[in-house]
Amino acid sequence: MERSEDAWIAAVAGRFPASGRVVVGVGDDVAAVRLGDRIAVLKTDTIVDGVDVRLAECGADAAGRKAVAVCASDLAAAGALPLAVLASVTLPRGTPFETFDALSAGLARGAREVGADVVGGDTGVADGPLVVAVSMLGEPGAMGVVTRRGARPGDALSVTGALGGSILGRHLTFAPRLAASQALVRRRIPHAMMDLSDGLLADLPRLCAASGCGADVDAERVPIHDDARRMTAGGDALAHALGDGEDFELLLAHAPLDAATESDLAREGVVLVRIGTVTAAASGLRLLRGRKAEPLPRGGYDHLRG
Amino acid sequence: MERSEDAWIAAVAGRFPASGRVVVGVGDDVAAVRLGDRIAVLKTDTIVDGVDVRLAECGADAAGRKAVAVCASDLAAAGALPLAVLASVTLPRGTPFETFDALSAGLARGAREVGADVVGGDTGVADGPLVVAVSMLGEPGAMGVVTRRGARPGDALSVTGALGGSILGRHLTFAPRLAASQALVRRRIPHAMMDLSDGLLADLPRLCAASGCGADVDAERVPIHDDARRMTAGGDALAHALGDGEDFELLLAHAPLDAATESDLAREGVVLVRIGTVTAAASGLRLLRGRKAEPLPRGGYDHLRG
Repeated sequence: MERSEDAWIAAVAGRFPASGRVVVGVGDDVAAVRLGDRIAVLKTDTIVDGVDVRLAECGADAAGRKAVAVCASDLAAAGALPLAVLASVTLPRGTPFETFDALSAGLARGAREVGADVVGGDTGVADGPLVVAVSMLGEPGAMGVVTRRGARPGDALSVTGALGGSILGRHLTFAPRLAASQALVRRRIPHAMMDLSDGLLADLPRLCAASGCGADVDAERVPIHDDARRMTAGGDALAHALGDGEDFELLLAHAPLDAATESDLAREGVVLVRIGTVTAAASGLRLLRGRKAEPLPRGGYDHLRG
Repeated sequence: MERSEDAWIAAVAGRFPASGRVVVGVGDDVAAVRLGDRIAVLKTDTIVDGVDVRLAECGADAAGRKAVAVCASDLAAAGALPLAVLASVTLPRGTPFETFDALSAGLARGAREVGADVVGGDTGVADGPLVVAVSMLGEPGAMGVVTRRGARPGDALSVTGALGGSILGRHLTFAPRLAASQALVRRRIPHAMMDLSDGLLADLPRLCAASGCGADVDAERVPIHDDARRMTAGGDALAHALGDGEDFELLLAHAPLDAATESDLAREGVVLVRIGTVTAAASGLRLLRGRKAEPLPRGGYDHLRG
């Protein structure tokens, strides 16, 4: 079997039948479960030293903060709001208290930034790298739980900001797009939404697969972050914008916006950059370069190749 | 600073202020958070290969099942019921799909056994051992969320089963005491409750500290599991019953039971074995051997000494 996160998850998904209380199950940015007449939004995400962060360079505080922020980004993708954080911390044997304390400070800071409380956790040691698994409880926003499903041919495909080169620092310092997400769901704009954690080339196919559609991405419209340009010094910055992970911008499919809505959103600091169009599934995923359409290359980050 | 899990958690707990939505925060078996008019019960627990399981011996299925069961045991301690499971899985680089598949089967089996759905997760690779962090959403039972607080001098101290020697196999195969827990909270019996994950010598001091009380444990009343006797071959099986971790029986403080309640519980398969009495804090923690009272030895499992 192909060694990719998506292939492996798909191969075991059948092991996890969903009872009637499951609103959104395995395979979306978040899960959602009925709790009486309420819906609990749930997410877990993991930071491993040497893979997602380099502790020796960024420090434990930044690692803890990132672990919370990546989880909150998934809640933003679902139009949900964070409430509570749990942290499972596996420390390398011999870790000094100062590292644990700095990690705790980072978890607390990350939670505070997204309006959540750290309510519990679990700590142990192992002969391995630092592993921080954060899980988050949230509540749905005005549209309930927004998923990756629901994109329709003709929808605009947009992102909330410039892409690429996050490795230069933004992968640690990004702010989850919770405010943008709430501005969008209050206006019931997203038909489908996700966060760009693994890069557009990895994430857009997931949204299209979930929605049963294709997509055309216009190369000239993809907003390229200055960091991506900095990494290439005049080279192919677009490749970074398309393939780098950890931008944590939102990708959404939506009906094209009128000017009034656009300026209304802009007043809240939300600018949707249209990068393409949702198409029928039969069209597949294409990258438009001027008048030429080529298949969207495969790429982005895969957690099993790491 | 002393390297113990309790000392480290206590030292960072002040970093995690709790807003009004937190019903139970850092430091109990579970956390509990208001979600509208409902209460979400939350728990995370982690299984590391080489620490909590030996994958080469038990297989990935048993490891996955255990990861869910230890979490469910904490919900039992809180008188709560499991609803949903998230699993964060960090795989050693090069792990074959078959291992991931077996782990998934074990997670699914563990969830099915406790009436919960696996609703999501996160998968990655790292240069380290298998780490499975399970988080669980549950709902409170008839007494709301039972905590470690609330034991009162004069209360009976009881456990739900025999202790010691779980390493011979029960640490993998135990059933979380969810049914016993529900039978207890339906009758509003527990004043304070927790699960015995780290051994009575580690866990009883936690219950007493949370309740602000002391305890006398009667050495002759501690129910010793056959596994503990098997490990000692006529030696000090009591030491195993007191100090071994992972019994996953419930420890509770409660008003002494009348005979009618006892037989009523017995009909549901719940037998509380009284092991001692809650005392005033000034008495400290004591082990009664015949007419002699000695300080309860320190012991049990500590996750930072691992």
